[in-house]
Amino acid sequence: MGFLHKGHMTLMERAKQENELVIVSIFVNPLQFGPTEDYETYPRNEVKDVELAKEIGVDIVFIPQVQDMYPNKMKIKLSINERIDQLCGKSRPGHFDGVLTVLAKLFHIVNPTKVYFGLKDAQQVAVVDALIQDLNFPIELVGVPTVREESGLAISSRNVHLSPQEKKEATELYKALNYGRKLVVDGETNPVMIEKEVKNYLKNNTSSKIDYIDILSYPDLKKVDQINQRVILAGALYFEKARIIDNLIFNEQGNLENKFS
Amino acid sequence: MGFLHKGHMTLMERAKQENELVIVSIFVNPLQFGPTEDYETYPRNEVKDVELAKEIGVDIVFIPQVQDMYPNKMKIKLSINERIDQLCGKSRPGHFDGVLTVLAKLFHIVNPTKVYFGLKDAQQVAVVDALIQDLNFPIELVGVPTVREESGLAISSRNVHLSPQEKKEATELYKALNYGRKLVVDGETNPVMIEKEVKNYLKNNTSSKIDYIDILSYPDLKKVDQINQRVILAGALYFEKARIIDNLIFNEQGNLENKFS
Repeated sequence: MGFLHKGHMTLMERAKQENELVIVSIFVNPLQFGPTEDYETYPRNEVKDVELAKEIGVDIVFIPQVQDMYPNKMKIKLSINERIDQLCGKSRPGHFDGVLTVLAKLFHIVNPTKVYFGLKDAQQVAVVDALIQDLNFPIELVGVPTVREESGLAISSRNVHLSPQEKKEATELYKALNYGRKLVVDGETNPVMIEKEVKNYLKNNTSSKIDYIDILSYPDLKKVDQINQRVILAGALYFEKARIIDNLIFNEQGNLENKFS
Repeated sequence: MGFLHKGHMTLMERAKQENELVIVSIFVNPLQFGPTEDYETYPRNEVKDVELAKEIGVDIVFIPQVQDMYPNKMKIKLSINERIDQLCGKSRPGHFDGVLTVLAKLFHIVNPTKVYFGLKDAQQVAVVDALIQDLNFPIELVGVPTVREESGLAISSRNVHLSPQEKKEATELYKALNYGRKLVVDGETNPVMIEKEVKNYLKNNTSSKIDYIDILSYPDLKKVDQINQRVILAGALYFEKARIIDNLIFNEQGNLENKFS
């Protein structure tokens, strides 16, 4: 959706390393915004985006207009009925249907062999994985590990809305998730226990309101009774003017995994 | 779906004439059959089908198994909310969603530049057109004119279920549709008038029960007040053991049109 930051840059660099030709699409997709969401005010800076893409050596920047992507009312609907009732999906009904629709269109227009998505939006990656698998898109999905500041804070456009004090506290989310992962490394297999410990850590170390701390199978995003498979430990925190998210994906030994499916 | 007849052969011949490489898929798609429909008993003859395809010079016959096409429960759903509440669609809820899903999968697996569909199933062609347009599939849709016996009867697997007397009467459907078209050539623009005339003709000349005789815009399949655009005049008749369908697509002058979109 453009307004590129270091996370996007890493995706482009990785794509550049692994492919002959790199195409970046920039499109703020109205279909994935709810009626009360910030489609109109979503930040845009196409001139700067094109400059940044050029610096990295991106071959083509594809910036369609809404009229190009949706010339007529859609008759066909794409929807997903799994992997969306957890994490961020539960508070954004229809969001991922809009994501799927624009991706199916972009995939057909751009015709990529590989697509690169940031694992910071791990649920989005899980949804794209379902799209590609279920409809047999001849595309390899590459999930790129989250890019972090030196403090560990996951890079996000929304970080600018954090006060200096909040920004300091926000770094605790990554620490808390790593603390949870450490418990698995040390032999804990009960997800409820770990979720509780992580929440307590955040309550003691931040002034944020916890939206969720969840352990789920990945990429299926289902509740697990026991950690005996690849899981995601994901968290979302509300600060005064920003909600931040982060996650870790690891196996039953607590070893980080960024590859899947 | 295989069990190839002269209609399918014409599709393959046409594809062979216009392309370097022709791939035929044969797959009886469980997803497009309703619970009370004839998925289990649908006629199959893959050995014969492959022979026939070979005769025409088809390069590849793709015959996947159900387990290949649907290895897991689908998480993604494709659906269409227009072009389906008329004609055959209204009595087969969910049918075209199943068609769309298998076609999206087959299109991604086979990766064709052109796809060939018979205009005998004109509603199916309209639905495939919506799929390709809405999701930007890089595919050209070719609608191939209905293949007929010398009597004018549209060729269909279901014709074998007609008694000799019914088969004779069934030829009246094509005559009736042409009679309706002739009224447009002669200046009639009121669809209700034409539908009535065509129905009367069929009542007078056959023992069949009329399912529908409809004039709709094509490929949008919407009711029209007046014939001032491309329309389809479509009919379906019930005989003792078979339901037969046929249609003509023509412009406001009554001239046949097989190209669209």
